[in-house]
Amino acid sequence: MALSGFRDFYPDDCAFRNAIFTVWRDVARRYGFVEYDGPPLEPLDLFTKKSGQEIITQLYNFKDKGDRDIALRPEMTPTLARLVTARHKDFKKPLKWFSIPQVYRYERPQKGRGREHYQFNCDLIGEPGLEADIELVALVIDVLRAFGLTEKDFVVRLSDRQFWTDFMNARNVPEEQRYAFIQAVDKSEREPREKTAEKLGPLAEDVFAVLEKGAASERLDHVEAGLRHRGLQEYVKRDFTVVRGLAYYTGVVFEVFDRSGEFRAIAGGGRYDALLKNLGDVDLPALGFGMGDMVLGDILKEKKWDSETLTKSRSPGIYLAIADEAYRPQAMALLQRIRDELRHLGLNSVWVDYPFRPMKLGKQFDAAYERFASQICIIDAKIEENTVEIRDTIIRGENRNIAVEELVGWLPHLSFRTARRMTDGAA
Amino acid sequence: MALSGFRDFYPDDCAFRNAIFTVWRDVARRYGFVEYDGPPLEPLDLFTKKSGQEIITQLYNFKDKGDRDIALRPEMTPTLARLVTARHKDFKKPLKWFSIPQVYRYERPQKGRGREHYQFNCDLIGEPGLEADIELVALVIDVLRAFGLTEKDFVVRLSDRQFWTDFMNARNVPEEQRYAFIQAVDKSEREPREKTAEKLGPLAEDVFAVLEKGAASERLDHVEAGLRHRGLQEYVKRDFTVVRGLAYYTGVVFEVFDRSGEFRAIAGGGRYDALLKNLGDVDLPALGFGMGDMVLGDILKEKKWDSETLTKSRSPGIYLAIADEAYRPQAMALLQRIRDELRHLGLNSVWVDYPFRPMKLGKQFDAAYERFASQICIIDAKIEENTVEIRDTIIRGENRNIAVEELVGWLPHLSFRTARRMTDGAA
Repeated sequence: MALSGFRDFYPDDCAFRNAIFTVWRDVARRYGFVEYDGPPLEPLDLFTKKSGQEIITQLYNFKDKGDRDIALRPEMTPTLARLVTARHKDFKKPLKWFSIPQVYRYERPQKGRGREHYQFNCDLIGEPGLEADIELVALVIDVLRAFGLTEKDFVVRLSDRQFWTDFMNARNVPEEQRYAFIQAVDKSEREPREKTAEKLGPLAEDVFAVLEKGAASERLDHVEAGLRHRGLQEYVKRDFTVVRGLAYYTGVVFEVFDRSGEFRAIAGGGRYDALLKNLGDVDLPALGFGMGDMVLGDILKEKKWDSETLTKSRSPGIYLAIADEAYRPQAMALLQRIRDELRHLGLNSVWVDYPFRPMKLGKQFDAAYERFASQICIIDAKIEENTVEIRDTIIRGENRNIAVEELVGWLPHLSFRTARRMTDGAA
Repeated sequence: MALSGFRDFYPDDCAFRNAIFTVWRDVARRYGFVEYDGPPLEPLDLFTKKSGQEIITQLYNFKDKGDRDIALRPEMTPTLARLVTARHKDFKKPLKWFSIPQVYRYERPQKGRGREHYQFNCDLIGEPGLEADIELVALVIDVLRAFGLTEKDFVVRLSDRQFWTDFMNARNVPEEQRYAFIQAVDKSEREPREKTAEKLGPLAEDVFAVLEKGAASERLDHVEAGLRHRGLQEYVKRDFTVVRGLAYYTGVVFEVFDRSGEFRAIAGGGRYDALLKNLGDVDLPALGFGMGDMVLGDILKEKKWDSETLTKSRSPGIYLAIADEAYRPQAMALLQRIRDELRHLGLNSVWVDYPFRPMKLGKQFDAAYERFASQICIIDAKIEENTVEIRDTIIRGENRNIAVEELVGWLPHLSFRTARRMTDGAA
């Protein structure tokens, strides 16, 4: 058994996981983001410097054999800050960087939350203007659209963290009460009104007025206008209860939820202009979001995206059936030739397989169907005249004999075929 | 700074790493292997059960907050054995499974060896016959060929671990001396003859005879014949000094080295028929190999594979230059339309980018060249008539005006263009 809170990825699970990664990568790249990565183990103080000593209770941390205090990364932002501040002069700003780290927290496993998950991180560094906020929100929307989700499925709740800072400034809220204030606003949606009112004291009325009637925010006006120009306005909604628990956000913030309200947040992020200065003494504005694979995966499974995608991503393949063992050597020469040719053609999704031992032809057909082979290529004495028999598993009909040269010439067309399961009951 | 022995992957490093992963995945899939994965953290005893308590000195192991003894995986085989033995009845044999885990050892970092690396693992489970050994050796050869390496660059040293077991049986070598015997043979190539002779005692003469003159092995005859049928005989050489240090190999074993002798082993593996029985009480024959990314990466860098590959893998892209800020909203609508169209077309390698803030056109061109844009699409008042100006960065010439519809219609052809750097000195 895997450790509690950790997942095994058997081939179908791994294919599903990788299909999510592929969509993440494709959309990030389409937006001009480039991929980076860092070590899963980091010095412990990289994390405490950002989040305080409290974080330690949630970490996989230990002393290594050289007596160093180290921890498995619970999030990617400290590593990103480390990488960027160390070499920021080597890169033209703005940076558009993404990563898909596996991250670890020692917490009680529950629905949509294990002790590890993969977290798609997209960050935009070096641009203070709101155009960057628009691009980032558009990206999070387009990632979910690329999974086939629509404005009926999810909503981006947009908020303005700076609005609340200004609100506190205007009312002279002392520094030491601000964290509690932010927390109270954050929890207001999930707690009874009285409880929130109690926490907020004399500020309660003003806060409720904002939460109920909204408030002016030029920042949000601008971001919403930008999304409207892109035709993405249906995907967002203003919601001042969104403040993001973490202390370091400074501007536009957002959280993405499924419309049904059944799941935890799908993604969250915002602008954190002061963080790189605090962590690495490099004054670069920044913003980003994180999206985990577990809540997203649960939603996609509910939408049957998983099985459809697995079917679609199933690679076409050729099964070499050996009808006469005497010709195995020739079959192996052909096997190698086909595989080489596929490599030269760059047809990287096509597989070629064959039986390791003598087997009745019917059994070999079963094995081919089992793997969704698009074509079965039968080897017998005809291989002496450079001819093989082809059985098409998609368009059923008579087997036909074709020259080996013709078979090889036809390979470029294979990747456009859809492999389907045609087992006649062998499933 | 990253912890000593751990690597950061800045975008170019990450692209190089991912390019290696892509080749590994492509070739494994072409051979009909499917991907799996497991957790990087496992119970400590999963590893001591296979390798004994000695392994602990090399591990990143610790107690978690629930007082469990856990460790970061130093290799993938114990996890594979756990997965396969738990659910072997759910899968048709033989299994062809691969994985690309990051693995961890607390050792002194040195050339070609850090405290982490990625290890491509290919295993074939449930087939006792030698055809599986041939397929596995052919796979390791084809993986390296797919990186552009040839028989001039590397050699697979083939050996027969069972031969040595039979050798010891025939000479009644006691059980407790066998590990030392195997170790002595393993080291014989790198140690002075006298030292090996001293270790081997009365068996020295017989061992040297085998190492110098070779010996009969029907197993190796069969594997070599199979590789000859595939035209791969130039890539292998018999070498009885290869025994693989680990105790659990039972049949054909092999190690892959560069011909120059400059680097550590590129890959190693073989048959381990008893391991799944020992670890999980499931009697399934098995064989496999591991190939790390560090030695391979060093060799590929020496061959300049890295920079060529990075250039080739550089995505084509479109840069939207905004010549007149008044038309930014229209530019953003076009941006979204192009990105959507690329998604619908499945052109997942193409990026579209634009300036976040007002910028002189020349600066925008610089930014486009900087990123190897294939096309620059200039937005000005003509967008009101659905027309944009296109500047081709590859075939240089006059800019030309085209209708937006024409631009969109031309997208399917973009991915076939090669992006090159054309900076006129902006690099």
